[in-house]
Amino acid sequence: MPVTIAVDANGADLGPAEVAAGAAEAAREGVRVLVFGPLEQLRAAGAEAPDGHVDLVDAPVSVAKAADPARAVRATPQASIVQAALAVASGEADALVSGGSTGAALAAALFNVKRAQGVHRPALAVSIPVPGHPVTLLDAGANAEVRAEHLVQFAFMGAAFTTGVLGVARPRVGLLSNGEEPTKGTPLVVETHELLAERAAGSGAFDFVGNVEGTDVTNGAADVVVTDGFTGNVVLKLMEGVSATMLRAIRDVAVSSRRAKAGSLLLTPALRQLRDDLDPELSGGAYLLGLRRLGVVPHGRFSRVGIRPAILLAARGVESDVVGRTHAALEDAGALRRVPAEASGQASTLTSP
Amino acid sequence: MPVTIAVDANGADLGPAEVAAGAAEAAREGVRVLVFGPLEQLRAAGAEAPDGHVDLVDAPVSVAKAADPARAVRATPQASIVQAALAVASGEADALVSGGSTGAALAAALFNVKRAQGVHRPALAVSIPVPGHPVTLLDAGANAEVRAEHLVQFAFMGAAFTTGVLGVARPRVGLLSNGEEPTKGTPLVVETHELLAERAAGSGAFDFVGNVEGTDVTNGAADVVVTDGFTGNVVLKLMEGVSATMLRAIRDVAVSSRRAKAGSLLLTPALRQLRDDLDPELSGGAYLLGLRRLGVVPHGRFSRVGIRPAILLAARGVESDVVGRTHAALEDAGALRRVPAEASGQASTLTSP
Repeated sequence: MPVTIAVDANGADLGPAEVAAGAAEAAREGVRVLVFGPLEQLRAAGAEAPDGHVDLVDAPVSVAKAADPARAVRATPQASIVQAALAVASGEADALVSGGSTGAALAAALFNVKRAQGVHRPALAVSIPVPGHPVTLLDAGANAEVRAEHLVQFAFMGAAFTTGVLGVARPRVGLLSNGEEPTKGTPLVVETHELLAERAAGSGAFDFVGNVEGTDVTNGAADVVVTDGFTGNVVLKLMEGVSATMLRAIRDVAVSSRRAKAGSLLLTPALRQLRDDLDPELSGGAYLLGLRRLGVVPHGRFSRVGIRPAILLAARGVESDVVGRTHAALEDAGALRRVPAEASGQASTLTSP
Repeated sequence: MPVTIAVDANGADLGPAEVAAGAAEAAREGVRVLVFGPLEQLRAAGAEAPDGHVDLVDAPVSVAKAADPARAVRATPQASIVQAALAVASGEADALVSGGSTGAALAAALFNVKRAQGVHRPALAVSIPVPGHPVTLLDAGANAEVRAEHLVQFAFMGAAFTTGVLGVARPRVGLLSNGEEPTKGTPLVVETHELLAERAAGSGAFDFVGNVEGTDVTNGAADVVVTDGFTGNVVLKLMEGVSATMLRAIRDVAVSSRRAKAGSLLLTPALRQLRDDLDPELSGGAYLLGLRRLGVVPHGRFSRVGIRPAILLAARGVESDVVGRTHAALEDAGALRRVPAEASGQASTLTSP
């Protein structure tokens, strides 16, 4: 039985046909893909693979551009992202991939796939392509406000993902702060440090390396960096901005003189490799963790080149049972949510704790 | 009457003599400098300028490496940073420069120079050397936790500094968030957005450009970026980390092949210029804003090359009356602290609001 991935083709910058083309490429590597989107555009992309591993489902309605994704998802059951999430919820598919908005994917998954048992809040994880030692950052934006027990769970979720999908046997997990000492940070961070140290000591899932600073995100000090969704979002976008600014500055110096121009021509192949190494498109996208099934949201600007690995990484997450690993590690450490008082399916984005 | 700057020479990585040497260079440009540190080392550096613009004060005791700077500053009145701050408080000097720890400088200034009238909290501002459009970021780490009225004041403080010291006539001020819409962010950021929009509308000091995201820090969207000290510290250190990682990666690709090696040799002068453009050592350091007098804390690793501009920028801040500008703008906008209930001189670092 091949792994089945439900893919929402609406919302990507390059349109549903491009997502469908990426899905067809992934299907050629043995994954079964259900693609939800406007059927004619999907067909036009020639997305039905000859070996029958791609099934197209007509779902032309998109909520990817809705100003309030949670409301749009609730109000639009026929939307492609909702249909794809329902296919995952029913067990027809094993994981969700959305080429559209992160907010809509998160809301549709939360309402339909629902949170994993014992998990407070789902989180968004991003694999940062640091040359030599990729870093998993979470939460990258799902929860602007969190409590200490949420951050502790994020550590377990990120570690299980990093082991199952990225193959790091015993990840080093760091808590992002403004200083290395356990006393540094906001009261939330200080409380989390203490709780996480306690939980991690009782777990074989990862090593807690304590607080890490901004400089440590790219220097290999940790395989997983845990923070709230506000800070994580700022971190992620800042890295994009700084990388782009530096590559632009290098381009500018490269044409600043005849001598530099000649040098840059010779350097071009090497710099192109560096640009590719740093390109988040090749690392798959963002991951929805803490749900009953895994979700992956490639960047909206991804072409088929980025859609294909996103689907394959989702399949790898299913095969390595990231969800089961996460639950087992949380249970072993006594970090599962105990009181099932919070309503399941509650929107976590930007709500107060 | 030349401007007088009090300089604490203790605590810098390269030692008091290096700071004294930087002070002597600044003095040659017409600034009067009082240097506090171990007299023999200061003298050994030949820091007494021939024109008498450098006065050396023997203050060998250093608290720069203290684990709890606020406590160390209170307990050690003879410490060089306390002596330098007292010289500023008494009016003997016009501004404070510390080659040592930011925490000790902040505590010494807060207890002795004290907060400016009507200011809730001092903040740490850093000028980020983005090529083409430097950005002032604050708070870069003085206050891990803040309230909305603190962030509003940071906007005025940062704008007055950017006008007075960096010469930007009407700075554009942005509020760091995880989305551009006024509704995006933590409840604190949403509240601050509303309050800041209101205050800025009543002020001629700057333009409030709304929320800015991580990508905007380096793309010229704002001249001043306002955030809390936890996020600001993470941002600053992350930028350092990403820049260092990219320059290292470029060096690695430059030796990856014979062809690339030849290219990089030709590019070397241009890349050296870029490295200098991005070097925070040449931009002066961090600034203590919101006190009765300006404070500047160069990076601990700075050599005389970085100490000299730090002293000259402090002098420029005195000449352009950054403190007076800040007060006038806050007063015009009705953003001064009204109830003088909070004890002046209260430690702001890492205290709860």
